[in-house]
Amino acid sequence: MKNNKQRFGAQELKYDLVELFKSESNNSSTLALHFDTEEINQFCDFTKAVLAIVAKSKIKHGSVTLFTPHTTTALIINESETGYINDFKNRIEQLVPSDSYYEHDDWDIRTENMQEDENVNGRSHVRSSIVGSTSITLPIINSELIIGRWQRLFFVELDCARSRRLFVQTLDLN
Amino acid sequence: MKNNKQRFGAQELKYDLVELFKSESNNSSTLALHFDTEEINQFCDFTKAVLAIVAKSKIKHGSVTLFTPHTTTALIINESETGYINDFKNRIEQLVPSDSYYEHDDWDIRTENMQEDENVNGRSHVRSSIVGSTSITLPIINSELIIGRWQRLFFVELDCARSRRLFVQTLDLN
Amino acid sequence: MKNNKQRFGAQELKYDLVELFKSESNNSSTLALHFDTEEINQFCDFTKAVLAIVAKSKIKHGSVTLFTPHTTTALIINESETGYINDFKNRIEQLVPSDSYYEHDDWDIRTENMQEDENVNGRSHVRSSIVGSTSITLPIINSELIIGRWQRLFFVELDCARSRRLFVQTLDLN
Repeated sequence: MKNNKQRFGAQELKYDLVELFKSESNNSSTLALHFDTEEINQFCDFTKAVLAIVAKSKIKHGSVTLFTPHTTTALIINESETGYINDFKNRIEQLVPSDSYYEHDDWDIRTENMQEDENVNGRSHVRSSIVGSTSITLPIINSELIIGRWQRLFFVELDCARSRRLFVQTLDLN
Repeated sequence: MKNNKQRFGAQELKYDLVELFKSESNNSSTLALHFDTEEINQFCDFTKAVLAIVAKSKIKHGSVTLFTPHTTTALIINESETGYINDFKNRIEQLVPSDSYYEHDDWDIRTENMQEDENVNGRSHVRSSIVGSTSITLPIINSELIIGRWQRLFFVELDCARSRRLFVQTLDLN
Repeated sequence: MKNNKQRFGAQELKYDLVELFKSESNNSSTLALHFDTEEINQFCDFTKAVLAIVAKSKIKHGSVTLFTPHTTTALIINESETGYINDFKNRIEQLVPSDSYYEHDDWDIRTENMQEDENVNGRSHVRSSIVGSTSITLPIINSELIIGRWQRLFFVELDCARSRRLFVQTLDLN
């Protein structure tokens, strides 16, 4: 029976693009994408966005570095296939379960960084640390981003729906 | 009883080296190593290859970035000791077991990216995402790669034997 | 009952700062921090140290790359909150348990890299590989390090108390 389950794969979110800095002597630049994630474990596909930044940069030879400024997210490069994404979600739930005790969420003993709107997100911090990709660097050759046939650039939301940013820095080596 | 088990440590594979780009104004360059892995969980040691690229680059001060364009591999820097490598293999098998269900491998429901020669590699995609190293950057100081006494640069095959590439980009900071 | 447990959060260790190289043509430079960790799973907070290096570098637009030359450590960017740090310690102990068998520690069969002062640290090598952050790159914009509100730069000791180094390379893009 094909397609007997609803399929939730990666999404391409709407984003605002902000140019933060441009080099005076070469084509290096740094930009930020601003966007709103929609749910826990959302795989946000920014491949097209980064390809467009590389094309516009006019860099022939160099690199792109992605950086997330958040503590409950991950940058993952993998295949945009719904089954894989569900496999990842299931596995991270088994490795760092939602129904475990997290001291980060225990306001009877916590004393640091408490916010009015604090999420129950102890699992999200630990998941982010285990997955462990805060930055990734990819080469640019002959004005093209080096990215494998099946690779897509995912910003993965490990917390709930939130306003997020992704920094993209292009480096001109010529 | 010493050596009562056969030891399978890291391997140095044969590779073809392709120079892809060289900067016009400095010693930065980007190369690709092409090679064939031989089995799942093979630790392919490219330390000597990268040291040779750094030596040939004539870069006095800069960095090297390694990048894998694949979705079922990992870059790991660790010790070249057979026991550690076996420990890693055992642990990744326990954390992301081969005998679990992977939706990526379920052709009754899968609809995306299906290939004639598709491997059963759902576990490999998830393992790659959990280990999570698509790129690594190491400094070059006084024309030498900064690499710890026990560190070796491993390209780790998390799928079966396949044709693979590793990108190596040198960056000249002088 | 608030504060009924003793709290062990991140520590700012004393360190020696060594400047290794400075570019002749721009403000790029590479430095090393030398320090002694104090116990397993210590989260060593070097945020202030890196902020000071960026400020002193005079770089307006560029990046900072952190690199650990060790095989039993990890670089983690996350929140400096004691509960989260304890949650991470508990989870890594469950995922890669201390009381499992590690072939790396089995001197009846081990034949490679044996040292007089070798630690029993098989678990530490595997934990380092799973957490998997040997290098991280952060952008610099308008002379300021881009680091999220809750992000802190941790060098995490996954072995016992040891002498350690952290490399910090600033890259000037202007």
